[in-house]
Amino acid sequence: MSTDKDEKGHTKEKDEHIQDEFTFIADMSAPFQTYGDVLVPLGDDAAVYRPTNGKGQIVCVDTMVEDIHFARHTMSPQQIGHKALAANISDIAAMGGIPTYFVIAVTVPQTWTMEEMRDIYRGMRTLADEYRIGLLGGDTTSNPHQLVISITAIGEVEEDVSLLRSNARPGDLVFLTGSVGNSAAGLDLLLRHPEKKDHASYLGLLQAHQQPQPHVEQGRLLAQLSQEVRLSLNDVSDGIASETHEIAQQSAQVDIVLNKQDMPLDSELITYAQEVGKDPYDFALNGGEDFVLVGTVPPSAWSTLEAQFRAHDLSIFSIGHVQEGQGDVWLIDGQHKRKLNKSGYNHFSTE
Amino acid sequence: MSTDKDEKGHTKEKDEHIQDEFTFIADMSAPFQTYGDVLVPLGDDAAVYRPTNGKGQIVCVDTMVEDIHFARHTMSPQQIGHKALAANISDIAAMGGIPTYFVIAVTVPQTWTMEEMRDIYRGMRTLADEYRIGLLGGDTTSNPHQLVISITAIGEVEEDVSLLRSNARPGDLVFLTGSVGNSAAGLDLLLRHPEKKDHASYLGLLQAHQQPQPHVEQGRLLAQLSQEVRLSLNDVSDGIASETHEIAQQSAQVDIVLNKQDMPLDSELITYAQEVGKDPYDFALNGGEDFVLVGTVPPSAWSTLEAQFRAHDLSIFSIGHVQEGQGDVWLIDGQHKRKLNKSGYNHFSTE
Repeated sequence: MSTDKDEKGHTKEKDEHIQDEFTFIADMSAPFQTYGDVLVPLGDDAAVYRPTNGKGQIVCVDTMVEDIHFARHTMSPQQIGHKALAANISDIAAMGGIPTYFVIAVTVPQTWTMEEMRDIYRGMRTLADEYRIGLLGGDTTSNPHQLVISITAIGEVEEDVSLLRSNARPGDLVFLTGSVGNSAAGLDLLLRHPEKKDHASYLGLLQAHQQPQPHVEQGRLLAQLSQEVRLSLNDVSDGIASETHEIAQQSAQVDIVLNKQDMPLDSELITYAQEVGKDPYDFALNGGEDFVLVGTVPPSAWSTLEAQFRAHDLSIFSIGHVQEGQGDVWLIDGQHKRKLNKSGYNHFSTE
Repeated sequence: MSTDKDEKGHTKEKDEHIQDEFTFIADMSAPFQTYGDVLVPLGDDAAVYRPTNGKGQIVCVDTMVEDIHFARHTMSPQQIGHKALAANISDIAAMGGIPTYFVIAVTVPQTWTMEEMRDIYRGMRTLADEYRIGLLGGDTTSNPHQLVISITAIGEVEEDVSLLRSNARPGDLVFLTGSVGNSAAGLDLLLRHPEKKDHASYLGLLQAHQQPQPHVEQGRLLAQLSQEVRLSLNDVSDGIASETHEIAQQSAQVDIVLNKQDMPLDSELITYAQEVGKDPYDFALNGGEDFVLVGTVPPSAWSTLEAQFRAHDLSIFSIGHVQEGQGDVWLIDGQHKRKLNKSGYNHFSTE
């Protein structure tokens, strides 16, 4: 690829802008591996795959918009690609499924170079290879303003698996498959304290924000268990407060009560919050995109669940319980009990 | 809904802007009918459906961006919704499939009201009800600039159906399932001659641009035939020149030759082109989004194909043939033969 210098003397690639939609899609899609049982691959009007006999097909869609979900100064192109796909895989994990295929729709402004777009696709590809997910299609359009990446992911799950948000009942325990708040703290660091970006002690926070790992293995364990035990499940893409509200509101006549002292916080998060004078629980409760799983389980099945997770070297925490109620979420902090707002991350909120 | 006046005295709805992503999705999705065999409906982390036994699952994605694919002054909100879904159904038709489900990702700027968004969804709903397609999910994000609607559609098709672009062979006839150029002429009228918008004589052109009908029934007939006969197929979303190039380039060592005098042009298109001093064949060859189907068939099967279409009261036209070559497309016009460019509609072209 030939290079050039711009007016400031920086080296720029000559093919800086995307000229041709067809070439773009072919160029970006070529390096992807074929996985699954594909009857017609990407490249025709549509792709066709053969579903596994007897498996339900999971479908979900998630969009990331430049300057809303990511920014050039908070994430590298590869990280943007990784996260766009990870968010979808996380939704499939929350249904107890195995991710199988995905399609991408991107609108690309002239401010993004071919090289940067290639890196975005590289980020998706690394994750797609890890989970053996096949790319089935793409649509590329221009957009004079922001980069918009919309991914639809497909997965498979046994038909008798039920990990619905509506499955919680009074008496259940609330569980969580990993620590929370790291992603929000990582974003806070990048936006408000970028000078700390290279501190080795905060790598975990940055990693949580920039390259989150969906909990597919945890989802599969819960799927197996759900064939015997009633479980509810949700992935934490909008913060614990928001996600537990969804369970409380979609289940019949229940409230959820969370114990502040049981909330799993990483030491990095606590150190960072202290250093910048914030409450680590604000990150943990209202920060989103941790991509761990939160759910409920009857107390009688808790020891089995815990043992299963331990046997697979996976974490699981009991952080509260379900009681009769009207769809509210409460936080117990020592002697105090307060109602949590369903704040979470809402793209239309005006704050 | 309460109303208010803005500074110019126009009536405005008080809820003009979208405040809450969760409420928005629930509000927009509620009126959709449930179709198909859904195990987990929209409203959880993902939806789950049961595929029909032995059917391949078709997946495709298509995006429409404000001021690129549509504009407020050329299409009503309902038409925008209709067309966004129609474009996807057309891709499924081009694989010989039956559309079954879809998911929507929208990015909504503050310039679009809730009422307008409801109309967009209403446009999708009318078409979804016509084809009994179920809505399986949605993601809504804000975008300060343009409205972006990205739809992923799912369909089903028998596993032995093959209607690939790569199936053309020398000697085949080229067929078309409807007239072309109307959509491009309709857009030309809206952009350059809006004073003719209410002429009853051009309703067909406007209809073709604003509310195109995908050729699902035609696709199904061709799917049945493809179990006996080798057929290639493509939908005309980017103009006949571009789509036949795709067939010519993806098939082995063939050129496609189109006969100008066989091209089916509607009289409205011819009248309009004359009136505005343009060549109707420019609209027909390079205008996109007609959503008819173009394909190739061995001449020995042409009479069967024609009879089948006639029996179903559907049009089919023979417009050219396939010969040995290098992936080019030619147009025969009386004594002249010229090479067609793969112009079509390319969102990144600078013209």
